[in-house]
Amino acid sequence: MVTGLSSDLDIARSVTPLPIMDVAARAGIPPEAVEPYGRGKAKLDLSAIPDAPDGKLILVTAVNPTPAGEGKTTTSVGLADALNRIGKRTMLCLREPSLGPCFGIKGGATGGGHAQVIPMEDINLHFTGDFHAITAAHNLLAAMVDNHIHWGNALGLDVRRIVWRRALDMNDRALRGIVQSLGGVTNGFPRESGFDITVASEVMAILCLASDVEDLEARLARIVVGYTRDRRPVTARDLKADGAMAALLKDAIKPNLVQTLEGNPALIHGGPFANIAHGCNSVIATRAGLKLADYVVTEAGFGADLGAEKFFDIKCRQAGLTPAAAVIVATVRALKMNGGVAKADLAGENVAAVKRGVVNLVRHIENVRQFGVPVVVAVNHFAGDSDAEFVVIAEAAEAHGVRAISCRHWAEGGAGAEELAHAIAELAEAPSQFAPLYDDDLSLFAKIEAVATRIYRAERAVAEPHIHAQLARWEAAGHGALPVCIAKTPYSFSTDPAVLGAPTGHVVDVREVRLAAGAGFVVAICGEVQTMPGLPRVPAAEHIRLDADGLVQGLS
Amino acid sequence: MVTGLSSDLDIARSVTPLPIMDVAARAGIPPEAVEPYGRGKAKLDLSAIPDAPDGKLILVTAVNPTPAGEGKTTTSVGLADALNRIGKRTMLCLREPSLGPCFGIKGGATGGGHAQVIPMEDINLHFTGDFHAITAAHNLLAAMVDNHIHWGNALGLDVRRIVWRRALDMNDRALRGIVQSLGGVTNGFPRESGFDITVASEVMAILCLASDVEDLEARLARIVVGYTRDRRPVTARDLKADGAMAALLKDAIKPNLVQTLEGNPALIHGGPFANIAHGCNSVIATRAGLKLADYVVTEAGFGADLGAEKFFDIKCRQAGLTPAAAVIVATVRALKMNGGVAKADLAGENVAAVKRGVVNLVRHIENVRQFGVPVVVAVNHFAGDSDAEFVVIAEAAEAHGVRAISCRHWAEGGAGAEELAHAIAELAEAPSQFAPLYDDDLSLFAKIEAVATRIYRAERAVAEPHIHAQLARWEAAGHGALPVCIAKTPYSFSTDPAVLGAPTGHVVDVREVRLAAGAGFVVAICGEVQTMPGLPRVPAAEHIRLDADGLVQGLS
Repeated sequence: MVTGLSSDLDIARSVTPLPIMDVAARAGIPPEAVEPYGRGKAKLDLSAIPDAPDGKLILVTAVNPTPAGEGKTTTSVGLADALNRIGKRTMLCLREPSLGPCFGIKGGATGGGHAQVIPMEDINLHFTGDFHAITAAHNLLAAMVDNHIHWGNALGLDVRRIVWRRALDMNDRALRGIVQSLGGVTNGFPRESGFDITVASEVMAILCLASDVEDLEARLARIVVGYTRDRRPVTARDLKADGAMAALLKDAIKPNLVQTLEGNPALIHGGPFANIAHGCNSVIATRAGLKLADYVVTEAGFGADLGAEKFFDIKCRQAGLTPAAAVIVATVRALKMNGGVAKADLAGENVAAVKRGVVNLVRHIENVRQFGVPVVVAVNHFAGDSDAEFVVIAEAAEAHGVRAISCRHWAEGGAGAEELAHAIAELAEAPSQFAPLYDDDLSLFAKIEAVATRIYRAERAVAEPHIHAQLARWEAAGHGALPVCIAKTPYSFSTDPAVLGAPTGHVVDVREVRLAAGAGFVVAICGEVQTMPGLPRVPAAEHIRLDADGLVQGLS
Repeated sequence: MVTGLSSDLDIARSVTPLPIMDVAARAGIPPEAVEPYGRGKAKLDLSAIPDAPDGKLILVTAVNPTPAGEGKTTTSVGLADALNRIGKRTMLCLREPSLGPCFGIKGGATGGGHAQVIPMEDINLHFTGDFHAITAAHNLLAAMVDNHIHWGNALGLDVRRIVWRRALDMNDRALRGIVQSLGGVTNGFPRESGFDITVASEVMAILCLASDVEDLEARLARIVVGYTRDRRPVTARDLKADGAMAALLKDAIKPNLVQTLEGNPALIHGGPFANIAHGCNSVIATRAGLKLADYVVTEAGFGADLGAEKFFDIKCRQAGLTPAAAVIVATVRALKMNGGVAKADLAGENVAAVKRGVVNLVRHIENVRQFGVPVVVAVNHFAGDSDAEFVVIAEAAEAHGVRAISCRHWAEGGAGAEELAHAIAELAEAPSQFAPLYDDDLSLFAKIEAVATRIYRAERAVAEPHIHAQLARWEAAGHGALPVCIAKTPYSFSTDPAVLGAPTGHVVDVREVRLAAGAGFVVAICGEVQTMPGLPRVPAAEHIRLDADGLVQGLS
């Protein structure tokens, strides 16, 4: 173990990575399936991976996120390393981070301390180019929409009803709202539009839910780009864009193999937003992991109200996956904040605040168990945490028949999460009782209500008549069997980010609905949801640079 | 040789590629310098390449392009294969193609027939991600410009004088002119802007002219993004964007190694526009090639009036390169078109038309020899060409002391260009007399005049007083020693694309000037120059798709 290093990047660089072919060999991946990308990354050709019985699928989720940080990715890495340490062949399956936010406030999304995946600077920047390919496929479709209109609009697209925007993997608030096609006849018909960040693209969600190349192309074909004057949908297939979009994604569809600091294999592939999309890594990577390993450790975005619910109701439902157990990550600090403490006041023991805040954790425990998935709580240890604070959490969990385990993987790597690994291995022994929250044949609004009342514990969900009318039109058009994907603040069970803890009696107001016919869900937007982030006053970019050895400095 | 195949893609796929490590070994590249990207591509770590005396630099340029096609890239590939065949260790150095145009009209830019570089579908689509990295670096700077203004505009940027647009590698006319930052306070200050295609980005030109990582970062720092109210320039350094931009380019700066169909090594790296930029592959790749091989075959964009002039006056000047010889590619068909024949009427012998059109070739011969570079003409053979037509070309060349050689590399690979290879090897024996067209210390407008009168053979260059004033301001600010980069139509020596042949007496009207302080040249825009292409009525994208084996079909 290396100590006294100043940053995650320093720790990551202090480890000599295994050659990626050796990582593949450790994971039982045949060499002919490995396409190296630089020295420490590879794409996998899945056709060369032998069939095998599926391993067990372990979800890592969390309490509602707070500015104190929970360490969900760090815990996923630590757990995978720990399972490998105790002799369980384990594959880690994570999301790819978005490039844009690395230049804003947040650092990368490759874990931290001694529980990281590497090469962290590559993974956080362009990695193997998947997000750039998604951006290109997205924007090709956008260009073909406007090109079609420019050359005569044979499909009769209503330029006021085009719903396909453009995408860029960059935090750029200036592109949220634009007027395009200015400058005269040769530039097309001016109209209002805008850009979303690439992780919010439906192409991203499609890539992550597709089961194979044919399914990918079929889903791309179903994308609705807009409507005619009489509200008939116009699709990517109508524009003949689906084939070229799939061609642009021919490599992006292959999972990426990297390693943890302890040399264990990790598939990092896809990274859809966890609000307007489902927030999990690709189905293709998860399935490959299940074939290759006895355990797959994967994570879902934000807290369990958003991430785990979508993992179960969208990803597992569509892909026929059966999770064996779930880890809910909590920290003393996050629960203190849920107990009303400001970030500036987190130092020092505060048992009373943890007692107030632990209701947030308890509700997530109850929620995950509603899906029939057994739970263990991982308390990600921070230096200032007291034993008494941990005991509050452990007792609250135990009152619900769930173990809470203090984990020190950040400081100690896999060795610090062995107890968690043993607990998970034990829980995953029992046959799964997993079932999604609601049935396919419920109406779309009844599905929204089911999530709102049973997961968010709202009194009810409400929507204006035009929203109900829109949902009815989609049901009439054959989209009624789709699951719903609710976009709301990740910070609260309610739609108000300031209401922490475990609120009840609130109302979920559905402001807008969007059809993601290719991804295969209906998005219900409840509250402010930003799909193109901005940069802060002092962007992280100002401190990022290449040193004389060509190494990236300042990426945190 | 394979015959009866229907497309370049079929021919390319009929060849079993060498493992990229074997290609590297053939080129004398040590294994530790090779970072594989998938099976048939690699990036080179230049620090692991041993120093050696420079080989000889051969430029492939052409007559003015016509819709008939000249085959400049095809000839470059054929010549490199032929030189290798006759025992000369040769490295091919080409530009990377742009992704956007592949979905429009034109196919890829990897040669054709039996003179191709492979894997063509990878090279034409994302390749190793260089252009996506350039797009990201470009757009990060753009986001930081608007972010700076949003948070208080401490540098006092005049929002009416921001010259840094955004970039996308896509043919999308709708993005040529936009109004951005709409939607209220949180989205910034609305202003007019737009997107250029990535190959038109100054970041592309910088990457291609940088000598190493430090020079890259220094050039990025010098980019002028806009001006204050009192016209002081604001740079990427002022915004502290240069380090993060360089970090985004850390892999893009490394040359990419691929192979020809005959297994010979090719470095394909960078691809700036040949109108508003200099149109050659990277200096880094060319220099690496010169260290690794006895001959480097490289090409420049468009015809010799634009491409060769910029190769000599910008790339060779900045990088201290000394070209040993040049090939001017011509075809019977292109010269017929220069002789006034429409594309539909090209079939059948037409000696008179070739006689009329050969003046175009002759002027390019004279021009290249003005730089002190010896010339050979490669007549890229097409099936319908007659001997009598070739003789016209050969006699015209001979009248200027230059050989014209009929080449059949398209049909026969390197074997079809051996005569050309011998001629080049002989020409390159003589000590180089190379010198750029004009001296650094000429005024900026005098440099424009030198190119206009001596290369384009215009009577004079003219510009409005505000253009002269702008050039004077840049000279006063210390940019007077830069070379000029003239953007005009590639189809004519004049600024009127309809005037073929070898016009004289025309006037070059400088409509606009732009400072590329990072790339290190002043752009003079003469006539309509489109920096964001559009898609045609029936885009090629409509016919591109993935087949059941995951192979791209329809890419031509």
